[in-house]
Amino acid sequence: MASPIITLQPLSAYTFTTKAPQPEEDPSVSARLQRLQNNYEDFGMRRSTEAVLLVHEHGHPHVLLIQVASSFWKLPGDYLRPGEDEIQGLSDRLDERLMPDDGMDGGEESGRGGWDISDCIATWWRPSFETFMYPYIPPHITKPKECKKLYLVQPPPKATFAVPSNLKLLAIPLCDLYDGSNRFGAQLAAIPHLLSRYQFVCQD
Amino acid sequence: MASPIITLQPLSAYTFTTKAPQPEEDPSVSARLQRLQNNYEDFGMRRSTEAVLLVHEHGHPHVLLIQVASSFWKLPGDYLRPGEDEIQGLSDRLDERLMPDDGMDGGEESGRGGWDISDCIATWWRPSFETFMYPYIPPHITKPKECKKLYLVQPPPKATFAVPSNLKLLAIPLCDLYDGSNRFGAQLAAIPHLLSRYQFVCQD
Repeated sequence: MASPIITLQPLSAYTFTTKAPQPEEDPSVSARLQRLQNNYEDFGMRRSTEAVLLVHEHGHPHVLLIQVASSFWKLPGDYLRPGEDEIQGLSDRLDERLMPDDGMDGGEESGRGGWDISDCIATWWRPSFETFMYPYIPPHITKPKECKKLYLVQPPPKATFAVPSNLKLLAIPLCDLYDGSNRFGAQLAAIPHLLSRYQFVCQD
Repeated sequence: MASPIITLQPLSAYTFTTKAPQPEEDPSVSARLQRLQNNYEDFGMRRSTEAVLLVHEHGHPHVLLIQVASSFWKLPGDYLRPGEDEIQGLSDRLDERLMPDDGMDGGEESGRGGWDISDCIATWWRPSFETFMYPYIPPHITKPKECKKLYLVQPPPKATFAVPSNLKLLAIPLCDLYDGSNRFGAQLAAIPHLLSRYQFVCQD
């Protein structure tokens, strides 16, 4: 019954460099929803996975978030191909997004990041081809259009993150995420709640 | 990595009766905070445990909440005595609050309710002798004044709940709790997030 223990490394254990830009796949939100609908007709419900990567500063947990332009924030991760394994797919997305390319195409050498992907801490459902999602399947919805799972992911004890030059990677303290739904959106503002069941041990 | 499975019984599997009133221990919020402070000086940080009891209606999960007067809602559970075991203490509080008295003083026969207390799904911290709590220990706080843990609790497949006549016990759907922080407060409105990592199987 004891709370599971998560060991956090200090932000200073990580080095940050930049790499080639990775433009958004869709030019607008409406284009992204249209593609979701097109893909639904061909393949059924979209499955997405995202990573909650944790570090600490001065003993307070921080979540690594990607900032797109100045006002849009997201977790690293993306949707999966039909039939693709959730965990392997998330590991590949994290490699592509955050690991140095080492002169290869991103994602070709799997597991480079040494990501420790553990618990699923939340699931979000998209009931229709609209922007809103819920942390449950709403009543009377029998065919959700997307299911997104958030996984707790431990980065390796030391690492160099290579961030696409059009994006920023920032460590946001839990106390900023909490009550930060105006700035970060409901999904990211809920992360402190999801993590409160864990006991954190902060390494020097 | 699969989501843990939780089996939900229909609300109709339960019978609700009333029993003698159980008045609030403190006459006001300020009296409750004053008692918290007095107890802190004697015993240190207060530990509390509360239960998230789930049922379903028409396949949608509902949480059993206690309504005090017309506008205050809370989970069943309460603070623990110094040294009292968390799980046993919660089981005793649930018996006292929700089980028929059977002509005895509440809580004397332990385990009457057959509560299946499983995961801790959230922890809330009170940094000072004030009303606000957070799902993390705020930076620079070294001595929190209260730690409250929420446990997922499965009621037995069939049961009769006896509710003190000054209180109501209501099954609130997740879709009402979500975005319901004005009505239910931040702690209860976060429950849908906390439960989204589980997969629910609804029994007829």
